[in-house]
Amino acid sequence: MPHPLDSFFRPRSIAFIGATERSVWTRAALANLRTLGYEGKLHLVNRKGGEVLGQPAATSAASIGEPVDVALVMVPSEVLLSTFPDLEAAGIRNAVVLSSGFAESGKDGAARQQALSDAAREHGVSLLGPNCLGFVNFVDRTPVWTVGARPPVGASRIAIVSQSGALAAQMSYFAGWQGIGLTYMISTGNEAGIDVAQAIDYLADEPRTQAIAVFLESVRDPSSFERAALRAKRARKPIVVLKVGTSQVAMKAAQAHTGSLVGDDRVFDAACQRMGLIRVRSLEDLIITAEVAARTGPISGGLGVVSLSGGLCEIAADRAEAEGVELPGLEPATMAALENALPGFGTPHNPLDVTGAVMLQPELLERSLEVLYAASNLSAMASVLDVPSAPEDDSALLRKLVASVSAVQGRHAKPGVMFSHTMRPMSAMSQQIAREANLSYLPCGVHHGVTALGRVRAWTEMLDRPTRTRDQAVAQDVRPQSEQQTLEFLASRGVPVIPTQIARSADDAVAIAQRFGASVALKIASADIQHKSDIGGVILDVRGDAAVADAYRMILQNASRARPEARIDGVAIAPMRKGGVELFVGTMRDPQWGPVLAVGLGGVWVEALRDTSLRLLPVTASEAEEMLSELRGSKLLDGFRGAPAVDRKAVARVIAAIGEAALVLGPELLSLEVNPLRASGDEVEALDGLVEWGGQPAGRLAG
Amino acid sequence: MPHPLDSFFRPRSIAFIGATERSVWTRAALANLRTLGYEGKLHLVNRKGGEVLGQPAATSAASIGEPVDVALVMVPSEVLLSTFPDLEAAGIRNAVVLSSGFAESGKDGAARQQALSDAAREHGVSLLGPNCLGFVNFVDRTPVWTVGARPPVGASRIAIVSQSGALAAQMSYFAGWQGIGLTYMISTGNEAGIDVAQAIDYLADEPRTQAIAVFLESVRDPSSFERAALRAKRARKPIVVLKVGTSQVAMKAAQAHTGSLVGDDRVFDAACQRMGLIRVRSLEDLIITAEVAARTGPISGGLGVVSLSGGLCEIAADRAEAEGVELPGLEPATMAALENALPGFGTPHNPLDVTGAVMLQPELLERSLEVLYAASNLSAMASVLDVPSAPEDDSALLRKLVASVSAVQGRHAKPGVMFSHTMRPMSAMSQQIAREANLSYLPCGVHHGVTALGRVRAWTEMLDRPTRTRDQAVAQDVRPQSEQQTLEFLASRGVPVIPTQIARSADDAVAIAQRFGASVALKIASADIQHKSDIGGVILDVRGDAAVADAYRMILQNASRARPEARIDGVAIAPMRKGGVELFVGTMRDPQWGPVLAVGLGGVWVEALRDTSLRLLPVTASEAEEMLSELRGSKLLDGFRGAPAVDRKAVARVIAAIGEAALVLGPELLSLEVNPLRASGDEVEALDGLVEWGGQPAGRLAG
Repeated sequence: MPHPLDSFFRPRSIAFIGATERSVWTRAALANLRTLGYEGKLHLVNRKGGEVLGQPAATSAASIGEPVDVALVMVPSEVLLSTFPDLEAAGIRNAVVLSSGFAESGKDGAARQQALSDAAREHGVSLLGPNCLGFVNFVDRTPVWTVGARPPVGASRIAIVSQSGALAAQMSYFAGWQGIGLTYMISTGNEAGIDVAQAIDYLADEPRTQAIAVFLESVRDPSSFERAALRAKRARKPIVVLKVGTSQVAMKAAQAHTGSLVGDDRVFDAACQRMGLIRVRSLEDLIITAEVAARTGPISGGLGVVSLSGGLCEIAADRAEAEGVELPGLEPATMAALENALPGFGTPHNPLDVTGAVMLQPELLERSLEVLYAASNLSAMASVLDVPSAPEDDSALLRKLVASVSAVQGRHAKPGVMFSHTMRPMSAMSQQIAREANLSYLPCGVHHGVTALGRVRAWTEMLDRPTRTRDQAVAQDVRPQSEQQTLEFLASRGVPVIPTQIARSADDAVAIAQRFGASVALKIASADIQHKSDIGGVILDVRGDAAVADAYRMILQNASRARPEARIDGVAIAPMRKGGVELFVGTMRDPQWGPVLAVGLGGVWVEALRDTSLRLLPVTASEAEEMLSELRGSKLLDGFRGAPAVDRKAVARVIAAIGEAALVLGPELLSLEVNPLRASGDEVEALDGLVEWGGQPAGRLAG
Repeated sequence: MPHPLDSFFRPRSIAFIGATERSVWTRAALANLRTLGYEGKLHLVNRKGGEVLGQPAATSAASIGEPVDVALVMVPSEVLLSTFPDLEAAGIRNAVVLSSGFAESGKDGAARQQALSDAAREHGVSLLGPNCLGFVNFVDRTPVWTVGARPPVGASRIAIVSQSGALAAQMSYFAGWQGIGLTYMISTGNEAGIDVAQAIDYLADEPRTQAIAVFLESVRDPSSFERAALRAKRARKPIVVLKVGTSQVAMKAAQAHTGSLVGDDRVFDAACQRMGLIRVRSLEDLIITAEVAARTGPISGGLGVVSLSGGLCEIAADRAEAEGVELPGLEPATMAALENALPGFGTPHNPLDVTGAVMLQPELLERSLEVLYAASNLSAMASVLDVPSAPEDDSALLRKLVASVSAVQGRHAKPGVMFSHTMRPMSAMSQQIAREANLSYLPCGVHHGVTALGRVRAWTEMLDRPTRTRDQAVAQDVRPQSEQQTLEFLASRGVPVIPTQIARSADDAVAIAQRFGASVALKIASADIQHKSDIGGVILDVRGDAAVADAYRMILQNASRARPEARIDGVAIAPMRKGGVELFVGTMRDPQWGPVLAVGLGGVWVEALRDTSLRLLPVTASEAEEMLSELRGSKLLDGFRGAPAVDRKAVARVIAAIGEAALVLGPELLSLEVNPLRASGDEVEALDGLVEWGGQPAGRLAG
């Protein structure tokens, strides 16, 4: 069954509604059809009829009298809404609306956009836009695009989806300079109808598109975005995203304490991680990374690098290290084979510098590449060499070297790309040489190329993780309020918590303390008091019956003085814990992406350093372990300064359980915090617990 | 007086020694002379005489019979040394040696290189190379260069200096694609003679060179490198450096504890900071940053950005934030003027999106640019717009917009560059349009362009700092060994240290403790015992006469059991300090760059997080304050969780004094560490001090 958007993005007939001689849009759109060699039908519609740019125009869509798949609507804003009945009468179900002046221009514009959406829905029309430039289906030579489009110069592998039409155009030009062909370019504009998620959904299915480059300003509907991303993930089709504009609004909405430790942009990072998206920071990296990913597919291990210059090898190695790309050492068999292939070269390394010696013995390149492509511990290969781009840099030698690389690439299934030294244009001559040699070559330079390979490697790791979606846990009808209730709830969800009992008299307190042993902590127990320390509601490290009784009385006295109105449950008594490592485990609800889990080292670490690792919930124990390893202070878990090493797996299981517990509390939970979670060896225990519910004022750490 | 290298790099006559028909070097070098339009004299020398490539060859340099400024020596390695007497006989004092197989290829090669250096010195010849590609003086159209050189396509402002000839060539090609002209390109190869430092020294004086791009694998002579860099700094001529290959050797040589906290590469960062160098990580950024710096000169404040696309503005803003470039808010007068210039645009921002409205009203661009160029709180301007690069993207509108930008650039002294949206080649058409409009335009794209502006901004800050060189302090004849001696020495250099007295009996200990008050710390006092805690040589928080006497006896007992051979001075007693923030202040001696100062937060912070800030010594108090602000845990100094805020200026003065104290101890000092330096409010006090001298085994923290 074809995708619902198939008739939109693969139209066999197009109508330009409001086509006029003097319109730059009409002219550009017509020129694009010619430039790309569109072979379908084109109809022009102008209320006055007559001829437009040499072609007869119908006076209405309905009067075309033939089926039309897509209308490009270029009428003035005043008459825009009145176009829809005509579209319906003509049986046209897809429309591109270019006009601006809608939601992007304030409140009145938003109202106009609502009216537009309503009209489209009423008349059964799918909408792309408004405030967009349209789309180009390059692979079927079908542009519905209103600024200059250029035909692809290389094989088309990647699609562009962009909320900004202007930047989509810029990216397509950049792709052209790089010899990178596009399958589609879709500008979604204000997304009154088709949004980025729907475009991704369409392209996830589109067989000629091997990777998708997405420019995002905001995600309109996170749920459908996530569904589309997961569809692409299942198809093992990489999505690369450049997202700008970290919204302050979302940040403010995250009132919980955990939210203040975490930026909105980092939540989107966590979302990318769950959805398996590659995130980049520049338009150049967006296009290059998508193209590299499309060419290599998943890369499951280390990278081999070959160049003719030692300096270049070092640049590649430094870049790989910065990107976290492993350049594995060579295995003994590979070393031996290389020593054979490169007599007198000393000890071969990865990256391999085959040196200027290839100028005299060009066969050295093919021999050494062959060895590295065959090496089982290298999962992908980057070779660095420029394809001649103009007669003045062409030579028989260079041609021979290029042929060597393509010969070896051709003999191996291993993903391999040849990069230029620095970024440069793909000239017509380079393009021809690469095409004729069937060479995978990108003139993006080593810096951007190795960066892209690093991202593809990281994407591959995400690919292999189980796909989880939001809110899998079923909310239960529990609503803990006090610290004591929170700890009891956590205990019921498998989280080890410190044993705590509520004393209701001084004698009671003494008896409880005696059961707990040498030293105890006493805290006021009241759901109405959150900042327990501030009011003198906490006394730590109390020893001996008299001291316990005194502490009990003092806490009650302090509480009743500071908060005469608070309902007091008594005084919570727990054994005093010392030593070990304290962690912070907190959840927050992001207004867009839902529940988020933050893990950090407790106390000043998380407060002053903001050293946290983030994931969207749910989180498995193995992901929680990964979070621990991402902390800058991670070393503290490994038995720092003689302390026993913490059992990371045990801690990770508890973290995952806390995350699950937060999900169980349902969507009204703003935040669940365990601070500290104490770990010492394989003992893990929540010493404190705090919940915050929607509508409550922002809370701080419990005393 | 001309620079000593003037005759080398601005030769009026050149001889090719060993020129032959079949040599690719001879052919390339000759072709380069033709391509660049060399107007000086050229002499060919071939032992057999005759004609080479249509020009008569002399049989020896001496037989040329005319003065020759530079010889390009291309003879086979076997006869290389025998060339020097001939050069001397001909009065040739400058030679470029291309051959490889010297120090870069192991021990035998190093010996050959030594012989080459000796021969050159003996015969009074300055050497460039071996294992280099020569140099090109583009501004005087004088190439002595043995692979293809291309004439500059734009105005020449920047020079390339590179230890790798191949990468110099690649950078020159990249510059060409970008329309960036070069003044010089010097490849220094193995640096048997002229090194990078000398080339920089030459270019610092060279009036046509406005910035220097340097590719470094290693710095041969840090002192002369630093002198050259400071010369360029005084001339306010930016140097941009790409340095690869963080040496493991240097790392190992830094045995001191401080050294293990610090990477070799970070020491080079600190060196760059002292020398005022801009450091980059890719060949593209190397060239682009040098060109941007050459065009703008120093930038002393915030940046203004103007683009025709909102998405692009957000990319620029995100990039600026990542680079630490301030995009100041607009002042009320600027806002008012912009609202005048852009009627109906709502609230103008920086970056300013003039929107697609300029397509209909192109004058909006010039009006709004004019306002921003006039804004006093913006120190530099980046406009984003593409110059047409081919007939298919040319238009009257675009020409008009380009003219607007150049008109405004021309009316203001404020540094301003127009960047393309994404990186693209500078086509002949773009070059011509930009030249005719006298437009400062770079097609490097916004990402690289804003990055470069950020680096120029950081360079400007370095420029304005006082220039200091290494080892200003005069070493004194003091050599503290024990902790007590170290603290006394620090006190003599103005560092507040904890009062400590040595007890030589239990009674003595009690009397001292009574003077210090409630609680004291006792430590074994012995220059022979470094790991005091490990042997039970430290007891903290001792209260009361009996406890002090017991602790005294226990420490001596532990020490004599664990280290019977150690000379014991007694037991050091100091008042017990609690609370406040503990810092780590340590110096190390880098084998290349000399004494380095590291500052961090004490305890687990520095040990587990490696959260340190680094500078080469000497360091002023204001630099030390800057170091404190660079710490990730910097917030802890500001009164975290109710603790009093630390007086940063007071701490910084003490840090600077510790640095000075390390310098005074002279070059045999490996490391001086104060750990912790305790700070609480405006109290600052060294609680511990450890010195390590050259030849001693690597030490750890004192107990």
